[in-house]
Amino acid sequence: MSKYLITGVMGFVGRYFVEYLNEKEPQSKIYGIDIASKCDMDIKYRSLNLIDAKQVDKIVRTLKPDYIVHLAAMSSVAQSWKEPATCFMNNMSAFLNLAEAVRNNGLNTRILSVGSSEEYGMYDKPMTEDLNLHPKSPYSVARLSQEYMSKLYVDNFNMDIVMTRSFNHIGPRQNTKFVIPSFIEQLVNISLGKNENKMMVGNIDVVRDFTDVRDVVDAYYRIIKNAPNRSVYNVCSGHGVKLRDIINTTAKELNIKPNIIIDPSRVRTNEVSSVIGDNTKLKKELGWNPKYTLQQTISDIIKTYEK
Amino acid sequence: MSKYLITGVMGFVGRYFVEYLNEKEPQSKIYGIDIASKCDMDIKYRSLNLIDAKQVDKIVRTLKPDYIVHLAAMSSVAQSWKEPATCFMNNMSAFLNLAEAVRNNGLNTRILSVGSSEEYGMYDKPMTEDLNLHPKSPYSVARLSQEYMSKLYVDNFNMDIVMTRSFNHIGPRQNTKFVIPSFIEQLVNISLGKNENKMMVGNIDVVRDFTDVRDVVDAYYRIIKNAPNRSVYNVCSGHGVKLRDIINTTAKELNIKPNIIIDPSRVRTNEVSSVIGDNTKLKKELGWNPKYTLQQTISDIIKTYEK
Repeated sequence: MSKYLITGVMGFVGRYFVEYLNEKEPQSKIYGIDIASKCDMDIKYRSLNLIDAKQVDKIVRTLKPDYIVHLAAMSSVAQSWKEPATCFMNNMSAFLNLAEAVRNNGLNTRILSVGSSEEYGMYDKPMTEDLNLHPKSPYSVARLSQEYMSKLYVDNFNMDIVMTRSFNHIGPRQNTKFVIPSFIEQLVNISLGKNENKMMVGNIDVVRDFTDVRDVVDAYYRIIKNAPNRSVYNVCSGHGVKLRDIINTTAKELNIKPNIIIDPSRVRTNEVSSVIGDNTKLKKELGWNPKYTLQQTISDIIKTYEK
Repeated sequence: MSKYLITGVMGFVGRYFVEYLNEKEPQSKIYGIDIASKCDMDIKYRSLNLIDAKQVDKIVRTLKPDYIVHLAAMSSVAQSWKEPATCFMNNMSAFLNLAEAVRNNGLNTRILSVGSSEEYGMYDKPMTEDLNLHPKSPYSVARLSQEYMSKLYVDNFNMDIVMTRSFNHIGPRQNTKFVIPSFIEQLVNISLGKNENKMMVGNIDVVRDFTDVRDVVDAYYRIIKNAPNRSVYNVCSGHGVKLRDIINTTAKELNIKPNIIIDPSRVRTNEVSSVIGDNTKLKKELGWNPKYTLQQTISDIIKTYEK
């Protein structure tokens, strides 16, 4: 009976991870922490800021979890340009406080350290895990630092840490500060007549690699349960899609013709034009296979806004 | 008449940089900040913790310096393993707060961002600036992040930042928590009969590249005055020396035969066995040439402990 400590449990991925565990391993013990004051899920919960090293040490020492699924993060690239110091604090200090708590209490807890496709920077081919990393934003530098530190903890203290470089994930219930839910919500509101036919966008010709969050948590589960110590896996669909194509697919399903307007404030500084991952390692080594097509995911997201 | 803001001005390098400026550019205006409450040098001084973003913004906005010579850092590798989160905060947040102050106030201040030879990791040849970086400690990951961020600030906001990867530097007045002053102080005390003949050391067969701090500040001055924007320079002697050889040279000068004892608590985790830099770029592009031989530096350090 495994004990899981999930950070950022109230976030987009955290909630899906809890649902996944409840189904896959109903006998597991789940402890959630998050900065939110209250939790509406049926799990043991503690409101906590991971910046508070003493409290993090105390909870890890008390729980002695088998696994820490570290999902809490400040994950917005745009936000990381507005507040780079805060980005480093929230990402690095949070991770280091968790890792130090495991190290200082001599636990053999396995940690899942989530990284980002943003660590790669620009490549004109699907990115494999062995490529050199060229981070292009404070967020991606913070994620790269976290990956370096994870490897140093394994190499120097025999800790047990497995890592991801996660590409964009989407699905129902994602916060509309992210691009896809923002687009789909706008399009649904246009189709329902709630909004006038004006679709505000940034650069929609960038290519991204989207995975359904339900496939992402399946990948994370396989990685934390079965990956070799110190390994890093891309979590991605392996396919590149233009944001413009997602708008078109959604519009077609909704049977509307959106009036698309470029909003300069949404165009990001030095945005990487194409990000496509190679998921061969994850498929081959851990038997992962995504179950949701992009079409299916978009349909499911549309439903949440039509309610 | 240039305005210099020097952070960590009360530190080992900071004091020498002030002395260098007083001689080289006596008409320059020098403003120093440091965490120390008081300053015994004849400069404008403010006690400040660089973690305090608001105060950093205020001082940079008010002074509008031509140059920020950013020397403040938590620079101990050993300490970075004891307190990794604090290491990241003191190095990254301090640097980011300064850079953000320059960016947010639209200044064209040039920043000198000091990095470390520790960023390279292990190589069995003299390290040139174009090599891949493989940081092996929290300190070196923090320094690498600072270098990445420096480049991003230049690329995205046309800021003006020049960088170093500084190898070990030594000289009179260095804190004895560092290896060379600790050794020389012990040896002088043995020679004066203040200590019994027991020389406590860690691994003294590691090879390091030492530069006299007075040559280091000459390099920093040339870099901040003349280097192209976004450039990175090794600051090093180009020669590798075993710590054991420094002990022998010192002992010979003092005419003693030290009884050397390995203290396991001084042997560092995963220590890099050899670090030698290549200084061709700094010499060729900026006309730097070190003036102090290792023998001269050791003599000068000995004198400070014989007083």
